[in-house]
This record gives sequence, C-alpha cells and structure tokens, in this order.
Amino acid sequence: MVALHDTLRDALFERKLLLPTAVAGIYGRSAEFEDTIERIDRLVSVAAAVDAPEVMRFAPAIDRRHVERAGYLESFPHLAGSVHSFAGDERAHRDLVGAAREGRDWSPALSPTGVMLTPAACYHVYPLLAGTLPPRGRLVDVMSYCFRREPSDDVSRMQMFRMHEHVCASAPAEAVAWREDWIDRARRIVSRLAIEARVVVAADPFFGRPGALLAASQRDQRLKLEIVAPIACADRPTAIVSLNYHQDHFGRLFDIRTADGAIAHTACTGFGLERIGLALYSQHGFERSRWPAPVRETLGW
Amino acid sequence: MVALHDTLRDALFERKLLLPTAVAGIYGRSAEFEDTIERIDRLVSVAAAVDAPEVMRFAPAIDRRHVERAGYLESFPHLAGSVHSFAGDERAHRDLVGAAREGRDWSPALSPTGVMLTPAACYHVYPLLAGTLPPRGRLVDVMSYCFRREPSDDVSRMQMFRMHEHVCASAPAEAVAWREDWIDRARRIVSRLAIEARVVVAADPFFGRPGALLAASQRDQRLKLEIVAPIACADRPTAIVSLNYHQDHFGRLFDIRTADGAIAHTACTGFGLERIGLALYSQHGFERSRWPAPVRETLGW
Repeated sequence: MVALHDTLRDALFERKLLLPTAVAGIYGRSAEFEDTIERIDRLVSVAAAVDAPEVMRFAPAIDRRHVERAGYLESFPHLAGSVHSFAGDERAHRDLVGAAREGRDWSPALSPTGVMLTPAACYHVYPLLAGTLPPRGRLVDVMSYCFRREPSDDVSRMQMFRMHEHVCASAPAEAVAWREDWIDRARRIVSRLAIEARVVVAADPFFGRPGALLAASQRDQRLKLEIVAPIACADRPTAIVSLNYHQDHFGRLFDIRTADGAIAHTACTGFGLERIGLALYSQHGFERSRWPAPVRETLGW
Repeated sequence: MVALHDTLRDALFERKLLLPTAVAGIYGRSAEFEDTIERIDRLVSVAAAVDAPEVMRFAPAIDRRHVERAGYLESFPHLAGSVHSFAGDERAHRDLVGAAREGRDWSPALSPTGVMLTPAACYHVYPLLAGTLPPRGRLVDVMSYCFRREPSDDVSRMQMFRMHEHVCASAPAEAVAWREDWIDRARRIVSRLAIEARVVVAADPFFGRPGALLAASQRDQRLKLEIVAPIACADRPTAIVSLNYHQDHFGRLFDIRTADGAIAHTACTGFGLERIGLALYSQHGFERSRWPAPVRETLGW
C-alpha cells in the first residue's frame, strides 16, 4: 500500500513543482513553487507591518557558540547540523581523496568550523538582542532557511526549509500578550488562505527520556501552541505555524534585559513557508489557477 | 592602519545594511540590503528570459555523493562544507553535552550526514541533466545560497552568499557560443548598474601544488573569465560575475549526452548577488536613494 505522503510527493514531482534528489527531504523548487512561497512570505511580513518590526534576514549558518549557548545540544542534538571542513596539508588531502574514491568515510580528515546550520530562524536574533531593551521591548521580523536532521519521505518534513518568524523580547506580561495577539493574527492568515487547520497545544521534540519530562512540562504550561493542518496525511496533521512563549529562557542565556534591568522574556511565532505552500497544493489542488478566488486574491494574483 | 575592507565593512555595519556576528564572513542582512539583492536577482533572471530557461531553486544542501562525483574534493577540499549530525544514544548524548559544557571538542560524537553544503548553485543542476538532452540542449536558471569555507574580514568574501547562475548543456560549439553571448549579456547588466568593472581571464582556487598546474592550464585555455569590480579595495578588484566553459567535465561525470549520443559540454555564468550589491553600495554610496537615476531605474524604483 502506498502511503498518502508518497501520493502527495509523487504528484508534486510529476507536476515538477518539486524536483527530486536522491536524499530524502532535500528537493529542488520550480519557479511556480518558489513564487507561491514568496507570496506567503510577503503575507507573513504584512501581518506584522503595523508594528514596524526590525527586519533581519540570514543565510542558514550560525555561530557555533550561539547554538551551544542556546541549549540546543541538550534538547535537540538529533536535529542539529554541524559544518565541518578540511584544513589539512597536501598529504592529508591525498588520504581524503583516496578514501572518497574507495567509498570509505573521509570525514576523519575534517574538523568542525565556527558555524552550524541554523536550527530555527529566531536563533539568529537572540544574540543580537543582548543588552538592555528599549522601554517597550523589541520586535523582530526574521526569515532564514533552517536545517533539521530528519530525513523523511514525507514531503512536508524537509531537511532544509524556510521559516519566517516574528520575535518579541520584552517584560513578561507584554511577551504573553504579544503571543496571544499572534494566535489571532496567525489564524487569520491561515483562514484567508482557506487552509483547513486547528490550534493545538504542542511540545518540542526533546531528545531522550529527560526530554519526555520537558515536553510534558511544556504542554502543561501551554508554552507551545501550533496551528496544524492536514498536508500529506488527512489523519496526521502537520504544524504549519508554531507560537512559543520561552519565559526567561533566551533572556537569561543571552543576557537580554528590560529597561528596568530584569531578565527579558521572549516569544516567537514561526511560519513554515514550505509547509504552508504544501498545504495549499494539498488542500486546493495542483492547478494554482483554480484555487479559490479569495485565496488567489490574498496571495496577490 | 585600517585596511580598506574594514572601512567598507564598518560603514555597512554602522548603517545597519549588514548585521555583524562573531564569525568572520557570516552576516545578517537588513530589509534594504535584501531588497537590493532581490532586485539584482530579478535582473539576472530577466537577462535570460528570452531563452525561456528551466527555472530551479534550491536550499543550500546537496547530496554528498554529487559533491564527491563532481571532483570537488580533489580540487577544492579547503572550501567544502560537510554537514555532520548526532545519531547516538542517551549515554553518547551525555558525553556530548559534557564536552560542550567544558568547552571541549564534541564533534567526535557526530557522523557525516548524506548532505554537504552547496559549493556553487550549478552543482545542483548537473545530476538532474543526466541522460540524453533534447536536440538543442538544455538551459537552466538556478539560484541558491552557497557555502565557501574562507573566513575573511573582507565583507565581499562571505562564507554564505547567493549565487544566481545560468547553465547550458549542449554540443561543444553551442556551449562555447552560449558563453560568448553571456559575456556581452553580463557586461550589459554590469554597465546598466554603472559598476566600474572589467573582464579578465581567471582561474579557480585549486588546492595545493597540482592545483597550480590546473589553474595555469585553465588560464591558457581561457576556460574561466570573470568580471571583476573594485569593492572593498580599489586596487584589488573582486569577481562579481564568473563565466565558465567546463568542456566535457560535468558531462562525463554525470553522463549527460547530446541527442546524437556524444558526451555533452557545459558552461555556466554565475552572478554573485551579494558582491554585486556590495559593489553598488561601495561605488555609488550608502544612500540608495542617491544612486544614479539610470541605476535606480534599472533596479526598478
């Protein structure tokens, strides 16, 4: 029996919306798919324009020390991507090439560089907020390709994908209120795209047994909400938006302080651009010109 | 004495066009800088629109085997970025976290994944061209973030940057003629942007002593041309466009064949989007609204 996610993936390949590679979760994108993503990206920007956030864009490489400091290795070691390079001499190079030619592992010739792949767009932002915030805090609009080491045949679970986030750093009450407001804003975006979806209490995929406790605590405190939509499987919806209240986690780790000197709280709302695009194709069909008129209007064509 | 490239970098930081990180060659981008890049990107697309190329876009991760097969490890091992991940159990995880906390190298806990970082946008394309080409060959418009392991304080030498390329795969005479034509097209783009630049015969930065021979041979055969422009240093111009004729190199490695069964030849023209943007700021000033009227018109505002 063919899994439903194979059906979606094959349909996307057949119509050349995505281009296959031999690696699960790594795809090329057609001009049309990319255009759809860019239009969703603009919607996510516009939803925050009234707040005049600072806009930051990043390549998907991040200071290794930021990932360490952010506690990512404790919580999500299995998802992280570390960039390693060759810094040897000609002799070491001959060994490397020899190993590669014989199909042996040539990675012992490499050493870790100063960068890792970006795990989430907002990880670029927290280090830049270090210090004292202005009285009303700071709001940032950030977009970046991200990497998650989770090879899958489910096309909605890519290893590299774009995440467009809005980040708030402020006093606790403001961060909480900001996220509440974004639940409505995010629902409105999803509703204007006529995507069948619902808000659920969720947890991050923490590693190992201690991780299960962290996940339970996160759920109990409703720290992570997701908007989930059926994409590849009707009965197993996928998160397309994630709304997170981090309490003082990042404020403490990166020494972000409110104007009165307290540790700042942070919250973020992340939109998975490829997943929203896939939800549109999956729910409205592969002929973009036949999507419902209000959806086409929302996307600007 | 402050190097000239420090002057440019500091000016870009001060005006928040680029955002500094602690890693050399890794920067955030402001909304304005990103908008400038996107406008250059569109120019590069439009210059090929008459050919109706296939359009492909990629995340900057590529099948490890394609990088091996393309000979990149032989020629440019020092520039490659390999993605490694953790696939251990809870005990291995405790060791990893302990090492990271104590500032020790935790990379032995990792193993190579199936992907590397993309060294050049066109590397995504050659594997997809495997097989027999249509009678007139194939033309592809491809854009991707790319990685080069060359940390530098020269802001025009980033570790991650966007490369927009046009690729031709065809019979030899057509590939040669295609590149000749692109010399003119690329010069026209640069000239419309009023960037002071010139075409030079160049060579790739091949590794080691055998690499010096390869570079000399590449120069002798004029296989690589570059359009170079002063960006950070008036007397040491930087390549902003690269025009390459690969002969049968990729055709042979990826079994790309012409309609009559011969090994196809390939050529590519790559535009360094960040570098072109930096050349604009460096040569026309940091107030984008004061750039020469024809340049603003070319960029569409």
